[in-house]
This record gives sequence, structure tokens and C-alpha cells, in this order.
Amino acid sequence: MSDVYAARRARLRDRCSAAGNAAALVSRPANVRYLAGGAPPGAVLLLGPGEDMLLCPRTPTGDSVDGHLDEQLRLTVLPTPSGDPAVAAAGILAASPAESLAVEEHHLTVARHRAIGSVAPRLRLADLGGAVEQQRIVKDEEEIACLRIAAEIADQALGELLESILVGRTERHLALELERRLVDHGADGPAFPTSVATGANSGRCGHHPSDRRVEEGDFLSVCLGAEYRGYRCLIGRTFVIGTSPAAWQIELYELVFAAQRAGRQGLVPSAGYRDVDRAARQPLEAAGYGEGLPSRTGHGVGLEIDEDPQLAPAAMGKLDACVPVTVGPGVHLPGRGGVRIDDTLVVRPEADGGPELLTITTKELLAL
Amino acid sequence: MSDVYAARRARLRDRCSAAGNAAALVSRPANVRYLAGGAPPGAVLLLGPGEDMLLCPRTPTGDSVDGHLDEQLRLTVLPTPSGDPAVAAAGILAASPAESLAVEEHHLTVARHRAIGSVAPRLRLADLGGAVEQQRIVKDEEEIACLRIAAEIADQALGELLESILVGRTERHLALELERRLVDHGADGPAFPTSVATGANSGRCGHHPSDRRVEEGDFLSVCLGAEYRGYRCLIGRTFVIGTSPAAWQIELYELVFAAQRAGRQGLVPSAGYRDVDRAARQPLEAAGYGEGLPSRTGHGVGLEIDEDPQLAPAAMGKLDACVPVTVGPGVHLPGRGGVRIDDTLVVRPEADGGPELLTITTKELLAL
Repeated sequence: MSDVYAARRARLRDRCSAAGNAAALVSRPANVRYLAGGAPPGAVLLLGPGEDMLLCPRTPTGDSVDGHLDEQLRLTVLPTPSGDPAVAAAGILAASPAESLAVEEHHLTVARHRAIGSVAPRLRLADLGGAVEQQRIVKDEEEIACLRIAAEIADQALGELLESILVGRTERHLALELERRLVDHGADGPAFPTSVATGANSGRCGHHPSDRRVEEGDFLSVCLGAEYRGYRCLIGRTFVIGTSPAAWQIELYELVFAAQRAGRQGLVPSAGYRDVDRAARQPLEAAGYGEGLPSRTGHGVGLEIDEDPQLAPAAMGKLDACVPVTVGPGVHLPGRGGVRIDDTLVVRPEADGGPELLTITTKELLAL
Repeated sequence: MSDVYAARRARLRDRCSAAGNAAALVSRPANVRYLAGGAPPGAVLLLGPGEDMLLCPRTPTGDSVDGHLDEQLRLTVLPTPSGDPAVAAAGILAASPAESLAVEEHHLTVARHRAIGSVAPRLRLADLGGAVEQQRIVKDEEEIACLRIAAEIADQALGELLESILVGRTERHLALELERRLVDHGADGPAFPTSVATGANSGRCGHHPSDRRVEEGDFLSVCLGAEYRGYRCLIGRTFVIGTSPAAWQIELYELVFAAQRAGRQGLVPSAGYRDVDRAARQPLEAAGYGEGLPSRTGHGVGLEIDEDPQLAPAAMGKLDACVPVTVGPGVHLPGRGGVRIDDTLVVRPEADGGPELLTITTKELLAL
């Protein structure tokens, strides 16, 4: 695995050199993890001009990391006993012949940026921009394997919940139970706070679970995900409670299901991000639900649960093979509830069978 | 309650005016919550020169907040349909006679700061620094009441765990069970990830729960906290598993207990932060454990679980009445385990009975 990280760093270093920067300082945690293979909280990665270095803070609990060449990571790991590791990195560079340093201006605060500037006043600070985030969009097969396991875990947790008695239990308890099951099945933890929404709350993605109890006749929307070796997936499903769904429930479910299927079918290499969004959005707009729709119908996943690309009306760019994304349109009717159906899929060429569905829990309307 | 928030904002506005800034932009989430009484994720607060305004982002889920004067908060709540609410705030100021704006340079990224500068090029951007964090140190009685309830919840969750069978269960499961109990007893959620450490892991604060199972003869350290109405407390205890603690366990426990008591007794108004730290640290150093000690023995709590003040050897400043802090020294012996004892207390004058202990679970060495 160390080769993978070294190759990722080499690619970023090439990109920096091409932009005229001899060195780069990566501070955004998911980016550090992507390039170093793992890092304690607050660690920063200094790339070039000499050895790559992972600078780690001394933690408030007194734990510290040894200064050593980590053979596994092919990185020099350096503890910085006090202060900001980013400033320590700039101090190291100040003593080198490097003239410029690219930093992540979208992550570093103004105060840290200034502190870096003052320990290395002769260094020109440039902007690395979203270079690492862009590099992270297309995943390798090891990353996809982690996402696949994360999705399996989420499917298992959700499947077990569906076998239990739901009526009378609160959203909050169902969410906690799902999170416990994720960990039982081997997740590092939930990929994001689990959302359980019943009755009038259903269909709202990101709904914060409340003390409302599941009742007969409710829609029940669940959105959860597992983190496995750092990789995060997402699954969203909507169920109906009781034996006989109302006509409006069946109709709304079928509409959202058709919209989600249209979005999934749009996931082919070189499809525009906005085209996938349009495919999922159009059926909902045509049915008169255009007004209250979310600003996007899906997004990338990986080391973070919300990554590029964004599947949204104004998004620029085209899908590549091996890009994992969510597709999850939904409709929420204020006061009544609604439906969301979310999957995590990997874009694959048609010759390889088209989009790979990672979250395989059925999307039939289940009456529980 | 709206008076409380309006008064906090008035105090901050006075401080800004005194520094020559007609307006301030607060972006750090806990600071926004402190001054506005609650805010959706990503909201920023614009103070003066006219009406105070809470600018809220349109969420990715499409939920948006109405533009209106919130009578309860005494704030104009303004949705910003696209882009960064901080940039929208600068745009509003650019059309006003304000000449300067204080921003939180320790929170705003370089990229956001630059975007603010470009929509309002004639505005001088100053640094608000940690003004709001400083204002948050001393709590009012309503804030302390929330912390008191949070501590009660944590005590209840811990007490129930101690009545259950522990041997054979994993650190991870015990941690999940504690978090479920916190929510059962009315917490908004855990105040931070619950730490459960057994055997050789015990005594390490911030230990990430593993699959290690509790065994006879183990030390078991638990560190947990509840969040209640945004306020977060912390309790840490160490127990011994089985009926007969070893001599080294009893000795180590008594030492840490004495150190923690010394720290608690140091919590009087006008005591130096470093003096409290020294009181708790000195007994451990005298016993030969100076080397591996954490860099601090306690810290403030409130809307965040880790706030100012820091109780550390080099910390400058003195305690005031009504400052809630943790006191939690610990010793970890690599390969053997250790002891941590953490409480949340509120500094009170001696005339009022001295420090108020919020976390009341016994600190006797319990053999479970």
C-alpha cells in the first residue's frame, strides 16, 4: 500500500512543479490521509523539495509520535512538540532553498497563513487550491473495495432494523440502534449522523432524529452510512408503516423511484454532472414538485461523505469511470411527509456492465 | 432569553467600537450560537452598524430559512440563496457607510477572507481575534444550569453502566451503550466521542475504543459527557474489575485521586490557571511520573467541550467565579494501564461554598 501513497504524492508534486511551486503544504485532514495513508488529528504533510514529511502535533493528552522514517508510509514522521505543525513546516522550508510554497487557502485560516508567512518571510505563498480534492475524485480499486464493504455494512444494519418492531419507537432510538448495528458489523463508525424521519418529517434528508414515535400509516425515511477504513458510503430508503399504503403514498413513491432510476441510468462515463441531475430532477418537476426540490440530487463520496463532484443544475464537468457518487432525489410535502431514495454507485463503462450499485437493499415499497 | 443574546451582542459591539470597528462578522459556529441563541449550520452573524443580522445558507437539501425579523432572537434572519453567507454579509456592508469590519481570522479561511475583500474592496478588514471566546469564559446562571443537567445525565448513564455485567464486553460496545444511555436520559447527544479503555489502554484520555474485552483484574477508564441545549460536560472515572485490586493499582489510584483533589481545591476565584495545573501536577511529578504527563490537567467547557481557560504550566490568566472547568489528571503506564479521574466543576467564591462539583459519581475506587 505504501506505493499507492507515494505515487499519489508524486502526482501532486508534479502538478505543483508545473505550477512553479517547489513545495506544497497539505493541511486539510482528508487530503493528508489520502496522501499519507493515515495521520493523527492535526497532522500536516510537507511535500518536497527534499523528503516528504508528516508533521504531527503533540496531543493535549501528552501522546506524541516519534520522529522517524516510517518505512510503511515512506515518509519522515516528525513530532512538533509545541505549536502549529504547519508553522513548523514553514520553519523547515525557510532553511531550505525553496522559494515558494503552495498552501490550501480553502482550509488554512487567515491566522495560520499569517503565522506561516512570519516564520518564512522570504517564501512566496501560493494557493494549492483544490488540487488534492480533484485528484481524489477518481478512485482506485482498493478505495472502491473499501466503499463496497462500507455499503455492505450499511445494507446489513438496515436489513436487521426492518426485521424488528418499529411502531411506537422514536426516531432517535431507531437512529441509535442503526449506528450500533453499523459498528457491530465492522464499521469504524457511522459515516455521518444517521437520519430517521417519520410521518410529516419523512422525506427530509438530513432530518435530525426527534422524539416522535413511529405510527401506523407513516412514511419512514432512513438515511445512514458506514465508515470503513476511512471510506464513507450512504444509503437512503423510505418505507411505509402498516399493511395498506394510501394512494398518495404509492403515487409519490413511484414518482421518486422513477426519478432516482433515471438519475442512476444517467451515470455513464463522460455524462455531464448537470445532465445526471437533470435526469433525476425532470420527472419531479414535471409532476409539479419543482419548487421545493433540493439544490442537488447527488454528490461524490470517499474519504468524506460529501465530495466532488456535485450533481446539480449549474455543476460544470463530466463523470469519469471509477467515480463513486450518490443518487438520491426526494420530495417532501410540508405537513404530510415524503420520500427519499438514495444509493451509492460507482460509474463504470457500459462495456463493464454500467454503473455498479453498492447499496443493494431493495427499492420496492416495503410495507412494514 | 432573547434579552440575554441581545445583551451579549451589545457587549461585543461596544468592544468593537472601542477598537474602531463599526461592524463585526462572527463565523465560528459556537460563537454564532452564543450570540444569536441558535443558528443553522454555516450561518454567520453580522453585528452593526445597523440591525444585527443572521445570514443563513440555503442548505444542500433545499431547506431554506425565511427572511424575517425574528422577534424571539431580536435578529433579522436573512437567507442567502447561493454562495457564502460571509460574502453576502460583506456585500451588505459594502453598500453601507461602514469603513471597517472585524472578522474572526482564527476561523475564516484565506479563501473566504479574500472573497470578502473582493466584494467589499473599500472595507478595511480587521481581526476580531478571540473576543467572543473570551466573552464566553464566564458563564451566566442559565448556562451553568444547562451544564448541571448535562452532568446529571452523564452521572446517570455512568451509574447504570456500573450496575451491568462488564467482563467480556468490548470497549466499543460499552462506549456505544453509554452513548445510548446519554440520549435515553435526555441528552442532545454525547458531548464528544465516549472513551472506554481497559487493561493496558486504561488511563489514556482520548483512547479510541477498540475490540478489546474487559478482563478480570483490569483497570477500566471511562470518559464521557452529555450535550444538553448545546452545553457540554465531561466526567472521567477509573474502576477496577474483580474483587481484589492489586497493590500497584490501589497505590496508583490513591496517587491520582490525591492529585485530582489538589487540583479541585485550587479552584478559587483569582487563582492562576497555571497554579491549578501545578497543584494537580506536582503530586504526580513527586511520585516520579513527570515524564509522560499530559500537557494540561484541565480546561474550560461550555458550548464546546474544549474551551478557554487551559489549565497548563504556561497558561496566563486567572480564574473568575462562574467559570466551569474540568480537572482531570491521569497517569498511564505503558503496557500496564493507568488511572484518570475527571470532574466538571464551576469556580465559586469560598463564601458561596467553594467550587461546585457538577459530576457527582463517587471517586472511591470501585471494584466491579
